[in-house]
Amino acid sequence: MRVDFQNWVAAHQLRFEGVLQAFLPRPEISPERLHQAMRYAVLDGGKRVRPLLAFAAGEVAGANSERVDIAAAAVELIHAYSLVHDDMPCMDDDVLRRGKPTCHVEFDEATALLAGDSLQTLAFWLLAEHRLSDDAARQLQMLRLLANATGSFGMAGGQAIDLASVGQALTLPELEYMHIHKTGALIRAAVLLGAYCGSLLDAAQMEKLDHFGKLIGLAFQVVDDVLDCAADTATLGKTAGKDAIHGKPTYVSLLGIQGAREMAKRLHGEALETLAEFDERAGRLRELADFIVLRKF
Amino acid sequence: MRVDFQNWVAAHQLRFEGVLQAFLPRPEISPERLHQAMRYAVLDGGKRVRPLLAFAAGEVAGANSERVDIAAAAVELIHAYSLVHDDMPCMDDDVLRRGKPTCHVEFDEATALLAGDSLQTLAFWLLAEHRLSDDAARQLQMLRLLANATGSFGMAGGQAIDLASVGQALTLPELEYMHIHKTGALIRAAVLLGAYCGSLLDAAQMEKLDHFGKLIGLAFQVVDDVLDCAADTATLGKTAGKDAIHGKPTYVSLLGIQGAREMAKRLHGEALETLAEFDERAGRLRELADFIVLRKF
Repeated sequence: MRVDFQNWVAAHQLRFEGVLQAFLPRPEISPERLHQAMRYAVLDGGKRVRPLLAFAAGEVAGANSERVDIAAAAVELIHAYSLVHDDMPCMDDDVLRRGKPTCHVEFDEATALLAGDSLQTLAFWLLAEHRLSDDAARQLQMLRLLANATGSFGMAGGQAIDLASVGQALTLPELEYMHIHKTGALIRAAVLLGAYCGSLLDAAQMEKLDHFGKLIGLAFQVVDDVLDCAADTATLGKTAGKDAIHGKPTYVSLLGIQGAREMAKRLHGEALETLAEFDERAGRLRELADFIVLRKF
Repeated sequence: MRVDFQNWVAAHQLRFEGVLQAFLPRPEISPERLHQAMRYAVLDGGKRVRPLLAFAAGEVAGANSERVDIAAAAVELIHAYSLVHDDMPCMDDDVLRRGKPTCHVEFDEATALLAGDSLQTLAFWLLAEHRLSDDAARQLQMLRLLANATGSFGMAGGQAIDLASVGQALTLPELEYMHIHKTGALIRAAVLLGAYCGSLLDAAQMEKLDHFGKLIGLAFQVVDDVLDCAADTATLGKTAGKDAIHGKPTYVSLLGIQGAREMAKRLHGEALETLAEFDERAGRLRELADFIVLRKF
């Protein structure tokens, strides 16, 4: 009997928490404060959307789940590092994340800076240390993929464009360009890395998964903008309404809340279409697409 | 005829500047400001001690010089990222580096944070993108080595211990423990990665090179402490005397300037001893050991 989606998500979130705990340096090992900050930034929080996408894509590709755990952990560590640095005073200057004080508030700025730095390093270490593929050359390709998604041509580049855009009037294509980098790149990487852990897919199918990742990454951001505007801080677990306060261009500011909702719906439909040729092994990926667009937090 | 050491250094520094220029994203590619900050932080400055050690170790191991360039660039990018973040207001709050304004002064804090982040990513990308070994599994091992030297059990961990030590009275073993991580780890990685690009050495020889790297890394730091105390800002190209100002424990504060000089001399002798069994191919490594200990800046 097939486990229903909510239970699949809950079971994977719980199991994955243990995976992350095991991969992170223990808090009593020197330097203790740094290791405590790294754990604080990663554990006990977050929907784990990227890992869930990796697990679901791994199912499509018939991947060994222990290998997908490693790829998913690497992506989640990169995501956590980016949140720690983004929240710092010189960036978004935010005090609340996942319902808790941000890392630099709980610890201090210097420790948060080093914790983010070290989480990034740990992500690449994981992909180099553990066997993700029987073919070491394929594993190097996966490392490249994560590095491309993370660096100045991916997530960090999107963040830089975001900084430059504060107070600017962006066009829709410009906003899309920013988000394809800032949030989209890592979401695409999560889908692809999960799939690369398996071996069932050919190049054309990987291409389709990549396109799915691109669409669902954008949809994720559009929904984020809607929620930032429509939900309250307690529901989000992070400061609500801060985009408007900071004068940041969003899908809501460009399209209105109804227009943004329609765009999310359209992207959702297109994402599901790219999965049309896949069989029932893509079921979780389809359900995750629904979840990402219909979520309330 | 053998090129003399000064010319060997100058030629490699010049050639390597071109290598770094080619590996860094072009300044006119989006996001321009981020890419300009990355280039600013890396190019036109520094003695390139770590790359020179990689080149010299590569000579010992009969390595292909184009491969060593990649390994050396990866190490130097990690070093550059650490300087950018270390200089930020929440860490050492320094305004001068390599005779120029520090990255966050020339650009801004947010850009410097992202530039450091992106330089780290680029380092791992380089090691995953280019062929460093005919054996992909060996290349994964090299990635692990760099990640170990960079993260919370290496350089970043040393930095965290350094932060925690300000105003504390450290013992000599504690100070040594800190520096073996903070500066030593990356210097050892430079030597080993250069050697891994070749294939002439057995495990025992690699062990000896690793020990050489450990000793010369410590010697480097002892000399740094002496220079911070004895040289002026114009000669150093960075703020002189700042260790004392910040109440940081140093080899000079623990041993006195004469004691620190003697320690550097002893480490230098021990480092040369570990190279005793190597033939003339280790000539540049021996000369670099001399240079590191006898340098005036």
